[in-house]
Amino acid sequence: DNQKCALDGLMSSLTKSVASAVLEKVTLSCIDASARGSLVDCPAGYKPTGCSCGNACGSWDIRNDQTCHCQCANQDWTAARCCKIALK
Amino acid sequence: DNQKCALDGLMSSLTKSVASAVLEKVTLSCIDASARGSLVDCPAGYKPTGCSCGNACGSWDIRNDQTCHCQCANQDWTAARCCKIALK
Amino acid sequence: DNQKCALDGLMSSLTKSVASAVLEKVTLSCIDASARGSLVDCPAGYKPTGCSCGNACGSWDIRNDQTCHCQCANQDWTAARCCKIALK
Repeated sequence: DNQKCALDGLMSSLTKSVASAVLEKVTLSCIDASARGSLVDCPAGYKPTGCSCGNACGSWDIRNDQTCHCQCANQDWTAARCCKIALK
Repeated sequence: DNQKCALDGLMSSLTKSVASAVLEKVTLSCIDASARGSLVDCPAGYKPTGCSCGNACGSWDIRNDQTCHCQCANQDWTAARCCKIALK
Repeated sequence: DNQKCALDGLMSSLTKSVASAVLEKVTLSCIDASARGSLVDCPAGYKPTGCSCGNACGSWDIRNDQTCHCQCANQDWTAARCCKIALK
C-alpha cells in the first residue's frame, strides 16, 4: 500500500545518503612498529600488511595475524607495517 | 519551514548514528598464502599488500593485482599477505 | 511508548541496511609505484602497505606515511604497494 511504498522509498534514500556519508568518513590508517630481534607486534586493532627486516633480509612471516617475524639468522631488527580502517 | 528542519535534523542524527554503527562492524581482514617457486595468488576477494620471499630475497612485484612474484634466481618459496574489508 | 519503539526499530533496520550497502560498495584498492633509486611516493590518497627493493634487499622503512625508502647501499630501484579504501 501507499505507506509501505513511502517507507521503502525513504529507506532507500536514507541508505544511499548515509552510505555516501560513511564512505567519506573512513580511511585506511597505518603506522609502523619496530623492535630489536626477529619479532614485533602490531598494536591492538591493527593488522600487519607487510614486514621489513634488518640485514637486507626479505624472508618473513606473520604469526597470529599480529606479529611480524623475520627469518634470517642473527636478525638485528624487525619492523611491521600495521593498518586498520579508521575515521578520517 | 519547521518540518523541513525537523527532517534535516533527523537525517543528520541518523547519518551519524549509522556511520558509527557501520564503522564498528567493518575491519581489515588479512590472510597469508604461500607456495613453492616464485609465484603465489591471493584468494579471490583479497588484495596483496606485500610479499615475502625465500632465500632472504626482498625484490618482488605484484601481477594483475592478485599475484606475488619473487624475483630472485632459484626462488624456493613465495608468500603473499592478502587483505580485504570484511565484517567483524 | 509505541512511537519510541517504532523509531528504535526503524533505526535498527536502517543501520543493518546501510551497513550491508556500504560493505557491498567498498573495497580495498591497491596500486604499485616504482622509481629508480631508494625512494618512491604513493600517490595522494593512498597509503604504503609494504615496499619492495632492488638488489634483493628486504630492509625498508616508510617515511611520512607516504614514501617507501629502501635502505641498502647502491639501491637501484624501489617500489611501493599503495592501498586505499575505495568504491567498487
